[in-house]
Amino acid sequence: MNQLPLFGHGRHLLSTQQFNDENLSDLFALADAVDPIAAGEAVCTVLDGAILGSLFFEPSTRTRLSFESAFLRLGGEVTTTTGFTFSSMAKGESIHDTARVVSGYSDVLVVRHPDEGSVQEFANASLVPVVNAGDGAGEHPSQALLDVYTLSRELKKRDLGVDSRTIAIIGDLKYGRTVHSLMKLLSLHKGLTFKVYSPSSLELPEPIAEYARARGHEVVDCDSVIEAVSGSDVVYCTRVQRERMTDEVKRGDKFRGRLLDKQMLREADALDIIIMHPLPRDSRSASFDLSDDVDDLPGLSIFRQTDNGLRIRMAIFLTVLGCSVDSVKATLKQRPWHAKLDWDVK
Amino acid sequence: MNQLPLFGHGRHLLSTQQFNDENLSDLFALADAVDPIAAGEAVCTVLDGAILGSLFFEPSTRTRLSFESAFLRLGGEVTTTTGFTFSSMAKGESIHDTARVVSGYSDVLVVRHPDEGSVQEFANASLVPVVNAGDGAGEHPSQALLDVYTLSRELKKRDLGVDSRTIAIIGDLKYGRTVHSLMKLLSLHKGLTFKVYSPSSLELPEPIAEYARARGHEVVDCDSVIEAVSGSDVVYCTRVQRERMTDEVKRGDKFRGRLLDKQMLREADALDIIIMHPLPRDSRSASFDLSDDVDDLPGLSIFRQTDNGLRIRMAIFLTVLGCSVDSVKATLKQRPWHAKLDWDVK
Amino acid sequence: MNQLPLFGHGRHLLSTQQFNDENLSDLFALADAVDPIAAGEAVCTVLDGAILGSLFFEPSTRTRLSFESAFLRLGGEVTTTTGFTFSSMAKGESIHDTARVVSGYSDVLVVRHPDEGSVQEFANASLVPVVNAGDGAGEHPSQALLDVYTLSRELKKRDLGVDSRTIAIIGDLKYGRTVHSLMKLLSLHKGLTFKVYSPSSLELPEPIAEYARARGHEVVDCDSVIEAVSGSDVVYCTRVQRERMTDEVKRGDKFRGRLLDKQMLREADALDIIIMHPLPRDSRSASFDLSDDVDDLPGLSIFRQTDNGLRIRMAIFLTVLGCSVDSVKATLKQRPWHAKLDWDVK
Repeated sequence: MNQLPLFGHGRHLLSTQQFNDENLSDLFALADAVDPIAAGEAVCTVLDGAILGSLFFEPSTRTRLSFESAFLRLGGEVTTTTGFTFSSMAKGESIHDTARVVSGYSDVLVVRHPDEGSVQEFANASLVPVVNAGDGAGEHPSQALLDVYTLSRELKKRDLGVDSRTIAIIGDLKYGRTVHSLMKLLSLHKGLTFKVYSPSSLELPEPIAEYARARGHEVVDCDSVIEAVSGSDVVYCTRVQRERMTDEVKRGDKFRGRLLDKQMLREADALDIIIMHPLPRDSRSASFDLSDDVDDLPGLSIFRQTDNGLRIRMAIFLTVLGCSVDSVKATLKQRPWHAKLDWDVK
Repeated sequence: MNQLPLFGHGRHLLSTQQFNDENLSDLFALADAVDPIAAGEAVCTVLDGAILGSLFFEPSTRTRLSFESAFLRLGGEVTTTTGFTFSSMAKGESIHDTARVVSGYSDVLVVRHPDEGSVQEFANASLVPVVNAGDGAGEHPSQALLDVYTLSRELKKRDLGVDSRTIAIIGDLKYGRTVHSLMKLLSLHKGLTFKVYSPSSLELPEPIAEYARARGHEVVDCDSVIEAVSGSDVVYCTRVQRERMTDEVKRGDKFRGRLLDKQMLREADALDIIIMHPLPRDSRSASFDLSDDVDDLPGLSIFRQTDNGLRIRMAIFLTVLGCSVDSVKATLKQRPWHAKLDWDVK
Repeated sequence: MNQLPLFGHGRHLLSTQQFNDENLSDLFALADAVDPIAAGEAVCTVLDGAILGSLFFEPSTRTRLSFESAFLRLGGEVTTTTGFTFSSMAKGESIHDTARVVSGYSDVLVVRHPDEGSVQEFANASLVPVVNAGDGAGEHPSQALLDVYTLSRELKKRDLGVDSRTIAIIGDLKYGRTVHSLMKLLSLHKGLTFKVYSPSSLELPEPIAEYARARGHEVVDCDSVIEAVSGSDVVYCTRVQRERMTDEVKRGDKFRGRLLDKQMLREADALDIIIMHPLPRDSRSASFDLSDDVDDLPGLSIFRQTDNGLRIRMAIFLTVLGCSVDSVKATLKQRPWHAKLDWDVK
């Protein structure tokens, strides 16, 4: 899909490949501009009268809610379809016909589909812009965008830029789709060092490492999580499904516990590292995932990621529908109500 | 159901029998008035504060989305229920109680139900107007209305009225519910010729033909699709499910291919005919349906039908809630955003 | 859960235990204030820009529609999730993580869950107020609130207050969760007499009776429905599932027919009694429930209960989000459309 046009007004969003320095920084400027809305201080009506068609051919509740809330927060309206409820497709209707028909009911579509490539096929017949919310083993560009946005915001809080940073990436680097998009998108920056660690048989595919190296970044294979996080500014974790590890790995002493916990960070002298995770994380005791004993660390950014998801998805819709930072600001107004939680029982 | 009141303000819409020349032309005037909204140029707030209860006891995603988008486009809000999720009905609650209760939550209801007659039963206990979105083998009046509206608009583009036109109707004329409502509604016009063609055992029921003849129209049985479309202004196709054909018919040479394709239109010298279809069409190669090789013909109106569905359903809601063409125009305003698609990759 | 804070601005609503005289009467004042909206005369925009996250982990269509319509009627927007579609929870995500993430997408959440206590667990991790819409055998506070509100309104129509009234409560008093919350909440008033009747093995649990007696009310066990309703101002019915009766009870003559019908009320000289029921009622002929032959009696309030549900839920949201009676009145405006039903066919 190298030939996809750059992302922008009136464009589908199918892949992170549609970004360069410039439109990525435009998107982030919009995400910054909606901060008073996302932070619950102001309401906005810039998308007054616009309709989002939210089409989830496979369920993904949190992604759906994030997209839908983002659109509603901008003053638009939403129609929702979840599950394989297009009986018309069961009757032999082509994706072309389905897409053409339902695109006539909305101003922009968010589509998630279990089959790689089918969102693009859908987009090809649509009258209106389509945002890819995940197509199986394919892309899930808004996730990569919110990850890079969060990473950049968290570094900025520490007065750091993204260029020249060291980023540990740990967990399932083979099947963890989000990691591949993230590394490609981060490669737009300069002089990064990726310290990667995965259980054997779940290694980062060579083409992804090559992609980063070809753009001037270092990719360093590590032998342990502690080695990976040591000296890094950020650690990005992904869940490892135990059934994907080889038997030898499962038998190994070092996979008895968590993928990452506070003790490891202490050993690596990295208790203040920025901790990221695409969520959900597996909190069951037997899971090889990020422990929740890190939840009180100041660098924990896993929920700021989902919160930023709202900002990034607002920015995506604003871009697609041709709204500027100024047009957003012009419709902001004070809330007449207050959602502050006042509750102290545990 | 001959005794149903005419359709209008505060009335249920249960059947196409509720129309005469006058209220049909009022409805189409409203459908014309919302054109700037449907065409994506203006937004409208005339139904500000109104709530549509969308109740689909059986799924029908595109019909649901069309009704819901229509209501949202007018500034209203929607609550959605799909599937047999009324656990209360499973607990022995009567349709009366269910309808009475949920009608207290909305200003108008759209109800689809698999059982003929149950939408009327629902309407009888409702506090607010009910629009029938299909009740099994019963009626689906908004489909017939959007068909007649599209037919009329397409003819008008050619500077033709509906009176005295020749209309081919082909496919499954026995089980194809939409065809029956369509012919009854078209019979409000004058001097039509219906050229009908169906595989044997799927013929038009005699009472429908009688209904049209009693109102001064001709109904001509044809031996082939080519005979039917030849000299016609419009061809209306319906899908034939192969399992409904008799064995003799299935064996026959002439049912090897499509119901209608470009080659047949060429043979009938009818390449510029207006082509209609209620959708979905079956695009699988073995289907006896409208071929997609006609999709580049100028008369192809199958997607304009679904687009017009939005206009007709807006007009239905406006009528039911007592809004005039003037009240719509008074709340129209320019969009602050632009949904134009700017994408040239295939 | 005795230690829960009082209900109010920024507070979760988990239990009827969060009410005293004062905040109950504040809530009812708000419910009165939204009357022009609920009655279909005015529209309101006080919650402009607010988002309700409606999370029904088990389906309950009418409760969901009532909450969603209430929020929409106040000018807010709604995202809906029904069924166990949080695939993330299946992947081992904790309720904490799920609640924290989705609470970032809304200003208030309505949560229904089949497991007792899980709504409170959800609330503990939420960034925004959570309204309990029923947690299994636990609480369903908005139902008890709308019941007391209806009872109070119906008595007021007869120029009566709630204090010192006699209230018959009949049916399944053991498993009927709503009855327990109702009696606790009514106990805030003074000098009530509860006349309770249930088939044997479905008796009122002693702790509930004790609760009422400890607050100065009388609880009188009755031997028949007729004895219970005789001389009462109100009768509150709950459905009895036949499978919950003992065999001996089922064999008994007096359980051949309905729980309550017009003939019984005539015998008890109570044809003008206020009749309440949480719905759904079982209208099948074999059911031991409220007969629909009482539907023409002037005291029938079962549908006014569901209508009042809308008012109470609006009042709940207004309280939680800190909106006063004055702020509601300030945004009321006339409807530009009219939903009056004009239909006279049966």
